[in-house]
Amino acid sequence: MLKLSDRADRLPASPIRRLAPFAVAAAKRGVTVHHLNIGQPDIPSPPELLARLRSFDQPNVAYGPSEGLPEMVEAVRRYHEKVGLPLEREEIFITTGGSEALLFVLAVVADPGDEVLVFEPFYTNYSGFAEMVGVRTVPVTTRAEEGYHLPPAAEIESKLTARTRAIMICSPNNPTGTVYGDEELERVAAICRDRDLYLISDEVYREFTYDGLKHRSALTLPGLEQRVVLTDSLSKRVSMCGARVGWIASKNRELLDAVLRLGQTRLCPPTLGQVMGAGLADIPQAYMDDVIAEYGRRRDLVFEALSKIDGVSVRKPEGAFYLCAGLPVDDAQSFAEFLLEQFDVDGETTMIAPADGFYATPGMGRSEARIAYVLDRERLGRAMTVIEKALELYPGTTR
Amino acid sequence: MLKLSDRADRLPASPIRRLAPFAVAAAKRGVTVHHLNIGQPDIPSPPELLARLRSFDQPNVAYGPSEGLPEMVEAVRRYHEKVGLPLEREEIFITTGGSEALLFVLAVVADPGDEVLVFEPFYTNYSGFAEMVGVRTVPVTTRAEEGYHLPPAAEIESKLTARTRAIMICSPNNPTGTVYGDEELERVAAICRDRDLYLISDEVYREFTYDGLKHRSALTLPGLEQRVVLTDSLSKRVSMCGARVGWIASKNRELLDAVLRLGQTRLCPPTLGQVMGAGLADIPQAYMDDVIAEYGRRRDLVFEALSKIDGVSVRKPEGAFYLCAGLPVDDAQSFAEFLLEQFDVDGETTMIAPADGFYATPGMGRSEARIAYVLDRERLGRAMTVIEKALELYPGTTR
Repeated sequence: MLKLSDRADRLPASPIRRLAPFAVAAAKRGVTVHHLNIGQPDIPSPPELLARLRSFDQPNVAYGPSEGLPEMVEAVRRYHEKVGLPLEREEIFITTGGSEALLFVLAVVADPGDEVLVFEPFYTNYSGFAEMVGVRTVPVTTRAEEGYHLPPAAEIESKLTARTRAIMICSPNNPTGTVYGDEELERVAAICRDRDLYLISDEVYREFTYDGLKHRSALTLPGLEQRVVLTDSLSKRVSMCGARVGWIASKNRELLDAVLRLGQTRLCPPTLGQVMGAGLADIPQAYMDDVIAEYGRRRDLVFEALSKIDGVSVRKPEGAFYLCAGLPVDDAQSFAEFLLEQFDVDGETTMIAPADGFYATPGMGRSEARIAYVLDRERLGRAMTVIEKALELYPGTTR
Repeated sequence: MLKLSDRADRLPASPIRRLAPFAVAAAKRGVTVHHLNIGQPDIPSPPELLARLRSFDQPNVAYGPSEGLPEMVEAVRRYHEKVGLPLEREEIFITTGGSEALLFVLAVVADPGDEVLVFEPFYTNYSGFAEMVGVRTVPVTTRAEEGYHLPPAAEIESKLTARTRAIMICSPNNPTGTVYGDEELERVAAICRDRDLYLISDEVYREFTYDGLKHRSALTLPGLEQRVVLTDSLSKRVSMCGARVGWIASKNRELLDAVLRLGQTRLCPPTLGQVMGAGLADIPQAYMDDVIAEYGRRRDLVFEALSKIDGVSVRKPEGAFYLCAGLPVDDAQSFAEFLLEQFDVDGETTMIAPADGFYATPGMGRSEARIAYVLDRERLGRAMTVIEKALELYPGTTR
């Protein structure tokens, strides 16, 4: 009997995908769906970058080098220099989005059967990338009541085995919005040094911090230069999610050489996205300042609106454009379906991401949801009203 | 001691990459290098597709669906209909180039340690994709003296084991230019049926056949509908290699469902390439006819020029835009280095791809090279003269 691989059987259906048919049905009924379930920013890309695309005048769309177009690599180098992370060009490898960056890093640091520690709740797709290359993600739980900050060293170390190859972190965090401080980063750094592990640091949301909080890059951790691998992306920073341009940055040249050998198999990252992205280091600071200020205002609005709803537990996120909220419901997945299937306020409803998909430990996150504040404030306000009113009618409300 | 994965150690350096520093050095010396080492077409993309890019007017570059933009999926469906391969939209999944298509198919049909049969010489990157997902490529040799056509069934079957999950074919073939006929395709089909295997068919060069020869798609093989998986790409057909848009097509919906779950982890294929590619089914037939006629003339030129060189053995390729030539040299890699490092004709030299990189069996292809006829005829003519004159001076010439 013709069958698929065991790997294929293990690949989870995306938690968002389970909801997709309900969203389609809602739209068919004429209901406007506010999509807070995915980090798709509505903010315009910098005009400088869009202009680069318009001035593309090649007769065809040619392969670039596997490591990225020289002007893109240089733009990323200059960008890093501006944010205080000096790197050589040879320490940067352009990828097809942050997704490929994570996939490639996992492939070159771990073999099938090896393990990588990851703090849950975590970006769901980490599991998918790991599954693809046969690597196990081992969850270490962070807790809402601790603001999703990292647990004590002993708790982290208790998850290490002889097969652990790396620890993965993401700060500012998706899905929690938490920004790790010096002390907790150094805690992880010490474990990596002592236990001979790589530190994979997903810094896609680097700029997105609020209330004057500063993001600290893992690349600045002393004595960890050869262990740290950054993964990053244009997607969120300049609203170019669909361009599929990201990168790996590391001081470990041997690792980058392996990444290059891997990257040569897929020829090159997308040329057109790089044509735009090559302007990265020339984006006016005012653009980034405005974008971050806007996300800050959205965060305040969503946080305040949720705080006022009876039974909702929420902490003010420190960065990124997500928050995890505890909802007074039996099951956030059912509530999300209810929102799409049976509920609207004046023809509008809200799509949220049930948080169980962000946990690897079974049973966790059942009454939590991730909310991405990626719409303008007017729409966000209406989306919050939908949640508030829906909790009054949803049969599984527990408050 | 911090180390990389065994997988990373096993990843081969690209055979082209070994030559890259020599090409860079040649260019620095002021020598013009004719790149016949890579399938990067110089032909302009269809104006209709370039116009689509110029009219892109979105405020940012958003994620599309994981399975591809609806207009891209529909374009691929209509394209297949035009070439006589009726498919439903649900039987098509848009990928980040043919590379990702191959990677995803391998991941969902085979587990780490499983095997896939592939006919050597074969497209080098098949090995890299397989290595990435822990799958072994098992070579079955095709021979120059048989025009690189498929060997008898018994020879193919002798390579099958309990772990074999699929047979991979590529017709028109890269690197040999061979187009498989009905009888040999049915030979492979029978083995797949009898031994319960998938047939992965890379049909990127479908249109590129000469002398009135017709390409036959594996999708038309009777009784094999659930076993056949096509991988394809915009890259060569419309000179959009850098756009990174390809696809998987199959009547096996269960397989496509697994591909979708895998594809969701990387969010979506590049939006900008799809904006262009959505015009695929509207390209005038005259564009494709002109392109194919041009490649046909180039093939004739290269074939005739090589045939006249003493000691070179070459067969007229039936399709694609490559040929494999036996050279009267001790080692094609050394000869390729000699061309770049020590030789020029009036300031011009030629870069070729040593064919040993296309064989998995050690020692094979040492005196063969792949030549991609992807330059205009004037340049191709001069590139052939370079090879002819270099063989007179190269110390390792064996004739």
